[in-house]
Amino acid sequence: MGDILREVTDGDLDAIEIGAAILGTGGGGNPYIGKLRCREQLKMGRKIPVIPLAELPDDALVVSLGGIGAPVVGVEKIEEGEECLRALRAIERELGVKVDALISAEIGGANSMEPMLTAAQAGLPVVDGDGMGRAFPEMQMCTWSIYGHREAPGAMADEKGNIVIIRDTPNDVWLERIARSVVVSMGAAAGLATQPMKGDFVKRAAVPGTITQALNLGRAVLQAHKTNADPVQTVINQERGKLLMTAKIVDLQRHLKGGFAIGHLALEGFGNFQGDSGRIDLQNEFLVFRRNEMVEVCTPDLIVVLDSDTGLPITTEMLRYGQRIAVLGLPAHSLMRSAEALKVVGPAAFGYDDITFAPMEDI
Amino acid sequence: MGDILREVTDGDLDAIEIGAAILGTGGGGNPYIGKLRCREQLKMGRKIPVIPLAELPDDALVVSLGGIGAPVVGVEKIEEGEECLRALRAIERELGVKVDALISAEIGGANSMEPMLTAAQAGLPVVDGDGMGRAFPEMQMCTWSIYGHREAPGAMADEKGNIVIIRDTPNDVWLERIARSVVVSMGAAAGLATQPMKGDFVKRAAVPGTITQALNLGRAVLQAHKTNADPVQTVINQERGKLLMTAKIVDLQRHLKGGFAIGHLALEGFGNFQGDSGRIDLQNEFLVFRRNEMVEVCTPDLIVVLDSDTGLPITTEMLRYGQRIAVLGLPAHSLMRSAEALKVVGPAAFGYDDITFAPMEDI
Repeated sequence: MGDILREVTDGDLDAIEIGAAILGTGGGGNPYIGKLRCREQLKMGRKIPVIPLAELPDDALVVSLGGIGAPVVGVEKIEEGEECLRALRAIERELGVKVDALISAEIGGANSMEPMLTAAQAGLPVVDGDGMGRAFPEMQMCTWSIYGHREAPGAMADEKGNIVIIRDTPNDVWLERIARSVVVSMGAAAGLATQPMKGDFVKRAAVPGTITQALNLGRAVLQAHKTNADPVQTVINQERGKLLMTAKIVDLQRHLKGGFAIGHLALEGFGNFQGDSGRIDLQNEFLVFRRNEMVEVCTPDLIVVLDSDTGLPITTEMLRYGQRIAVLGLPAHSLMRSAEALKVVGPAAFGYDDITFAPMEDI
Repeated sequence: MGDILREVTDGDLDAIEIGAAILGTGGGGNPYIGKLRCREQLKMGRKIPVIPLAELPDDALVVSLGGIGAPVVGVEKIEEGEECLRALRAIERELGVKVDALISAEIGGANSMEPMLTAAQAGLPVVDGDGMGRAFPEMQMCTWSIYGHREAPGAMADEKGNIVIIRDTPNDVWLERIARSVVVSMGAAAGLATQPMKGDFVKRAAVPGTITQALNLGRAVLQAHKTNADPVQTVINQERGKLLMTAKIVDLQRHLKGGFAIGHLALEGFGNFQGDSGRIDLQNEFLVFRRNEMVEVCTPDLIVVLDSDTGLPITTEMLRYGQRIAVLGLPAHSLMRSAEALKVVGPAAFGYDDITFAPMEDI
């Protein structure tokens, strides 16, 4: 399990799916269909080669890509399957370049699988890393953007043959805004590839090793299932996390606003947490965890909701009244905790002007 | 007034404004601000040369351009002024070509002025003609699209520095749909330039001489004001039109749906039309006129609402309960009445499956 990952094989996909879903912190979309598509590619004899971040040549051209849309639509409107490949070809044509490798914009959720699928289709490797180390709802929230890469031009492709190039924008927030409205007209699901990055930048800016991380995390959970070990404790150990609460969901407010699932859940502790009340705020992802009305863990640190029995992650759209859950805090990567990053992914970026980020280890 | 128009001068602008607003049949946006910008360009010593359609070289590259957005927003959010110029430059760069001339997608309303403004800015001529001979709400409703030109790629530019290229679409309805959602993210106002056309195609597909037509129509109205002639009758004579009703607006239903102003007005005739009731349906433009519940004039023929005293046009957003109006029917150009055209701009295209178009002269 400590080996350097050189290739994703069929046997790895189930584990990556679980690991990526946990790192999605409730959002990021479901990796299940992407997993099936990757499996299909591998059965056809195609490969998903992996380049460790450290081995990426400085002058390699790396494209960050993934699906964009509403996860809740992606469940019912299944991709045609080559959206990201067409977006990749469109950005290559736009700039007159050949891309050397692909990388995921976010390892959390469905976009863990998209670059692997495109890699198999295009005969390119994926880089072991990503732009978030988790899931976030908007494109300017990835490390490429935070650490100075300009995402425009970006290319979008849907299943109907539409190709849109967002060529110039004053900043990456505008890219996000325009891409979001284009994807609505495309039917709420599209592939998106942004301006290629040089290898040396990716080595500095990517959250490293996150495909391996998802794989090992998922493997540990599957192993716990086999050996009847505690899967929740397994996730905690694997990710240097912390059990925040075992609890029952006693209230659930969730509505769609501006394309995002916004709301909160109220928790009543059980087991060691009997007598505690809790609350988790969500905006697609889980953003803030409060115990007895005091903030304990907040974005960019990862708040993960697992089924308390199986240790499997529960996404925001699967939350139900009465569910028995385990709430975990996992530390975000240091690239997500810098002053530059906190401006974009800290609590204030989501409207929590009164919350100051403190690393979860300090609480 | 019968001379061939070679150049638009300051003295022409007021007349073109009036003529274009009448041809807008209630929609198309207000040409007033575009007129002021054109005037400013002319004062700076720039020119607006006009090429008669017949003199356009067969191999000239002609770009159709205009503003896209919600007219109701355009009134309050004034353009920065070079949106269409940037869209033009973007489409030139996208295709690696130099454009020879500009043409209006629709002569009715604000887009009468946009190509003239861009012509002055870019040092290019405008072609005397347009793609509708009136105003219509969607891009696939212009003759370029109806007669076989594919509008993609299209380039959009806003005042903030955003440039979007809609590169491939399965058809022009998709171009319209994507452009519409992009413009919403841009703040409901942008410049749009579509794929250049060859001169020989434009000569076949453009509604000919419509800048001259707007100019002469406006001049006639202004002349009627000066000489105390009847301005309503002047419009009718100038356009071979017909007075459908003089009436008072006794009911007005109007709401925004999908970015369009949808509704109808109920009319009570006066003067020679005492005892008649009327109804006009609108979707941005006036689409169907009924007398005593029978359809009399419908799209693509032009239904024009004038103030019954001044002969000046009233746009859909300026309609008010109690207004005294003259309703005119003006015949659409034959390019808009062909079988191909009626599929796209006939009553069925606006949801009137039960109405068959009959030329207004036949009623």
